[in-house]
Amino acid sequence: MPSYKAPLNDYKFLFDKVFSVYNNYRDISNFNDLSPELTDTILSQAGKFAEQELQPLNYPGHEEGCHWNNGEVITPRGYKAAYEKYIASGWTQISEKPTYGGQGLPRIINAAISEMNLSACTAFGIYVTRDGSIAAIENNASDALKEKYLPKLIDGTWGGPMCMTEPHCGSDLGLIRTKAIPQSDNTYQISGTKMFITGGDSDLGENNINLVLARHPDSPQGIKGISLFIVPKFLVNDDGSLGKRNEVRCGSIEHKMGLNGSATCVMNFDNATGYLVGEINKGMRAMFSMVNKSRFTIGQQGTALAEVAYQNAVIYALERRQMRALTGPQDSDHSADPIIVHPDVRRMLLTQRAFAEGSRALNTYIALLFDKQECSPSEQVRQASTALLDLLTPICKGFNSELCTESVNLGLQTFGGHGFIRENGMEQFVRDARAAQIYEGTTGIQGVDLLGRKILASKGQLLKVFNKEIQQFCEANNNTGALKPFITPLAQLNQEWLDLTLTIGSAAISNPNEVGAASVDYLMYSGYVTFAYCWAMMAKSAHEEIMANGSSPFYESKIRTARFYYQRILPRVSLHAELMVSGCDNLMDTEANDFLLF
Amino acid sequence: MPSYKAPLNDYKFLFDKVFSVYNNYRDISNFNDLSPELTDTILSQAGKFAEQELQPLNYPGHEEGCHWNNGEVITPRGYKAAYEKYIASGWTQISEKPTYGGQGLPRIINAAISEMNLSACTAFGIYVTRDGSIAAIENNASDALKEKYLPKLIDGTWGGPMCMTEPHCGSDLGLIRTKAIPQSDNTYQISGTKMFITGGDSDLGENNINLVLARHPDSPQGIKGISLFIVPKFLVNDDGSLGKRNEVRCGSIEHKMGLNGSATCVMNFDNATGYLVGEINKGMRAMFSMVNKSRFTIGQQGTALAEVAYQNAVIYALERRQMRALTGPQDSDHSADPIIVHPDVRRMLLTQRAFAEGSRALNTYIALLFDKQECSPSEQVRQASTALLDLLTPICKGFNSELCTESVNLGLQTFGGHGFIRENGMEQFVRDARAAQIYEGTTGIQGVDLLGRKILASKGQLLKVFNKEIQQFCEANNNTGALKPFITPLAQLNQEWLDLTLTIGSAAISNPNEVGAASVDYLMYSGYVTFAYCWAMMAKSAHEEIMANGSSPFYESKIRTARFYYQRILPRVSLHAELMVSGCDNLMDTEANDFLLF
Repeated sequence: MPSYKAPLNDYKFLFDKVFSVYNNYRDISNFNDLSPELTDTILSQAGKFAEQELQPLNYPGHEEGCHWNNGEVITPRGYKAAYEKYIASGWTQISEKPTYGGQGLPRIINAAISEMNLSACTAFGIYVTRDGSIAAIENNASDALKEKYLPKLIDGTWGGPMCMTEPHCGSDLGLIRTKAIPQSDNTYQISGTKMFITGGDSDLGENNINLVLARHPDSPQGIKGISLFIVPKFLVNDDGSLGKRNEVRCGSIEHKMGLNGSATCVMNFDNATGYLVGEINKGMRAMFSMVNKSRFTIGQQGTALAEVAYQNAVIYALERRQMRALTGPQDSDHSADPIIVHPDVRRMLLTQRAFAEGSRALNTYIALLFDKQECSPSEQVRQASTALLDLLTPICKGFNSELCTESVNLGLQTFGGHGFIRENGMEQFVRDARAAQIYEGTTGIQGVDLLGRKILASKGQLLKVFNKEIQQFCEANNNTGALKPFITPLAQLNQEWLDLTLTIGSAAISNPNEVGAASVDYLMYSGYVTFAYCWAMMAKSAHEEIMANGSSPFYESKIRTARFYYQRILPRVSLHAELMVSGCDNLMDTEANDFLLF
Repeated sequence: MPSYKAPLNDYKFLFDKVFSVYNNYRDISNFNDLSPELTDTILSQAGKFAEQELQPLNYPGHEEGCHWNNGEVITPRGYKAAYEKYIASGWTQISEKPTYGGQGLPRIINAAISEMNLSACTAFGIYVTRDGSIAAIENNASDALKEKYLPKLIDGTWGGPMCMTEPHCGSDLGLIRTKAIPQSDNTYQISGTKMFITGGDSDLGENNINLVLARHPDSPQGIKGISLFIVPKFLVNDDGSLGKRNEVRCGSIEHKMGLNGSATCVMNFDNATGYLVGEINKGMRAMFSMVNKSRFTIGQQGTALAEVAYQNAVIYALERRQMRALTGPQDSDHSADPIIVHPDVRRMLLTQRAFAEGSRALNTYIALLFDKQECSPSEQVRQASTALLDLLTPICKGFNSELCTESVNLGLQTFGGHGFIRENGMEQFVRDARAAQIYEGTTGIQGVDLLGRKILASKGQLLKVFNKEIQQFCEANNNTGALKPFITPLAQLNQEWLDLTLTIGSAAISNPNEVGAASVDYLMYSGYVTFAYCWAMMAKSAHEEIMANGSSPFYESKIRTARFYYQRILPRVSLHAELMVSGCDNLMDTEANDFLLF
């Protein structure tokens, strides 16, 4: 069975050095109390919970899965007890607003905790992530609804599943058929079937506050006729106590490739009582306040699984002995050397490490932006943060999840045949990771979102904000000789990114298919450049630490991994650059039915 | 549940046009009777068996798995009946020599049948693949052993598992500990534990003829002290009847990520009676006669799963409707267009198609070489075929299996969230495919085998044989304008391949780690160039057919897919070329323990 160690040193490096988060929050009065000591204490407690309480549940939960019993979902053994312990410790409240019982700490803290939960037991980690639902209510609902539902969502007494997908519509929410019939008492009767609802039902928490997209009978067709509703499993009385069972029931749970401990539910709404969140027909807009957060969580799932797979692959590579090093025996006391002597094993390990640590840096940067977007006193900072979040969310979600699948597969591969055996746990990481490329919008959807909806629709403005920041970083560090191997290529790519965007934008004017034909390569290109920025920032901070305090293995390793990233991973950008401008003809000129000629 | 259609048109194209197999066999007297009609009849019967008898077993067998009961293995429901039908139809005998009851047809026929079996039900297809074990006995054992064991191995009455791996040694067979103590009656007592033994026990067939690597007590340490033994599950009397149960038993079966219908066994040998195959201490050499064939089968598994995943992804993409085409509605009768209108979905489908059909061409080419190696009257042809097989086997095994995992993941991805659901069958393809990158030697092992053991050890001679063939093909077709987009880049890459080999070979002289640091990128590079050759051959044949008989969707599609391959897949070579010469320093300069700094 795999093990897990919370990456507290890496978080400390990111918080204290790379992003100087305490400086970053100086003008945000809510966070003035934040200190390295407080952060260290919280993260080390959270890490301990993940290592000791959650990690042991991971493999057994994978094998046992969830149970469905006449409409009720039972989570794997141990989940309920761990959940109760988790909420009793207040972990769900960390970064939520004090108004409704949150502890008001910055989101970066919660983001770090989330990653640890998702590493230790991904399926459990998903149950306790609810900031998307909370944001949707907080930003859109009436005060009465907020007061009724937020405190217990925040303290974890209740869960908050998001109910969007229907059997015939996943990416295309304009096709939603679930009906919302208005009643004389200002409630709605909700009827329809939702599927792929994560945690749609479970035995964790006393109630489930479903957030449901549905259509008013008078609403226009398509995406502009969708509204958002709260549909609780148990109705909530005015005093906050639970009332009668609402007509929303879990019809079945899916048998999935992975994430077996996380119940993916078919939810049947049969004239269930619902409450409108925000305005009628503005459901998609309301939903978007949760989308960025939910997509960020999936990007974090990528980091989390890449990290734990990496850790276990390293441990195995140090123990497992097969053959001698190509340069001759390294350990004559044994009949074979540990496989970490083999260059190709190191290639696999360093790829995993570069992805896990690179994506952690990106996530931390994004979490910082969430904080600034919500709490900065400066309108300009809030707007710039929103722009960067719009740009970076599809990259974080799409790119992290693609690299995660590559990483966990390399982890499995490091184990050789033993990686294919369930008990060794590496195959669970591969199976659990696979969902991340799909849910909350596939990689293809993220690609079109990034290139079409975000960058081209803003006439490149969103990209320019980020581009300028990278340019300033390069200019500021251009004279540090040790950083040249990072700064020089980064500056070049930063310019090339703009140029490529212009090329595709021009091509798209005469043929919109050029956007779709380029989008995933564009997403991957953008991801590699973004990671290059993250690795350059980390190399800079590590270099400064070494200059100030002398050599240390941690900082030297950072610089070596940065070098590995620049020499062995970053060259992928050239390929994606070439492909994204290769045109859509080679995709579009085959007749649809000719694909069937097999 | 997925469907499957045997790719008979593609095989007819490859056999009749691309490889002109009937011409190719003209000087091989055994195969003089072979005609397109005979081949078509056999393959269409085999295809029907795969579609109708095997494909329905695939998903239920995945869910049910194998059962272990006190040392006996029971395969999933339906496997035994299908197996009996399969051997009764003589399918295991097709390409084996008539001396021991084979039908003496060329290996290309059997290879095509194998692929269909592996597409329809991979786990079942593995049970009926035994040409590796047969070859090991045929090429190494005494006539007495051959007469005793081959007929029933060939007619399928008995199975023939290969028992190499032990708990502490997979890739490094020099570490084998299983003992073979010589007895006065010329038999050996075999004792030890083997693991990861595919079909080590099963309820298919009356007996299992284990081929076991073990060590004579007087043998030298390491790889030069290994011998090969036959260790039957039931001893065989001189009249061919079954005698007493031998002391070899299945200790357990593994719980795996996939291939659940294929029993992967721990095999315990406890003073079991064994019979030496060939000479003492020459076990590794004897084993190598089976290794090329077994690795080829794994390469075929790659093709097989890429094909079936592609077929189901296409069908889904034609049916599933989400959103409108970027260029506007394509089907106004519905509220959304089928997802095949989206460029990125086509990118995924064409990638799968290019891999499935490209690798099928490579497999057919390799199977043809097996036939020539075994049966050509010309010593020169036999030698050239052996050289090409040595070169192409690691490419077929390593590259096909890597691309297969990419393909089946793209197939799953095409299904969106529905791909993650077990009942839809796409996740089974991903899980079943994953083993191919591992067993019979991981991708890393194939890389070192190709670059180190094959190409550099032969001072480039093995590569030059293939290189010359590609060069001649390019020269012969250089004047056909329509083929220029294929011939020009292929000729360039063919030269670059040699140049890169020289560069790495030179670097390896001063540092052997350069081989390991380059090997997997070298393997991938070699694979893409080899596929480019295959696609150029297919484009040429398709072009000739169109010139001769006018346009046809089948041939036009071939040329379009070739173009897609050259424009959207082949550019990957530049990346691998850059990486393979980036040096080993960025891999080797991290201290082993510094990998633990997380």
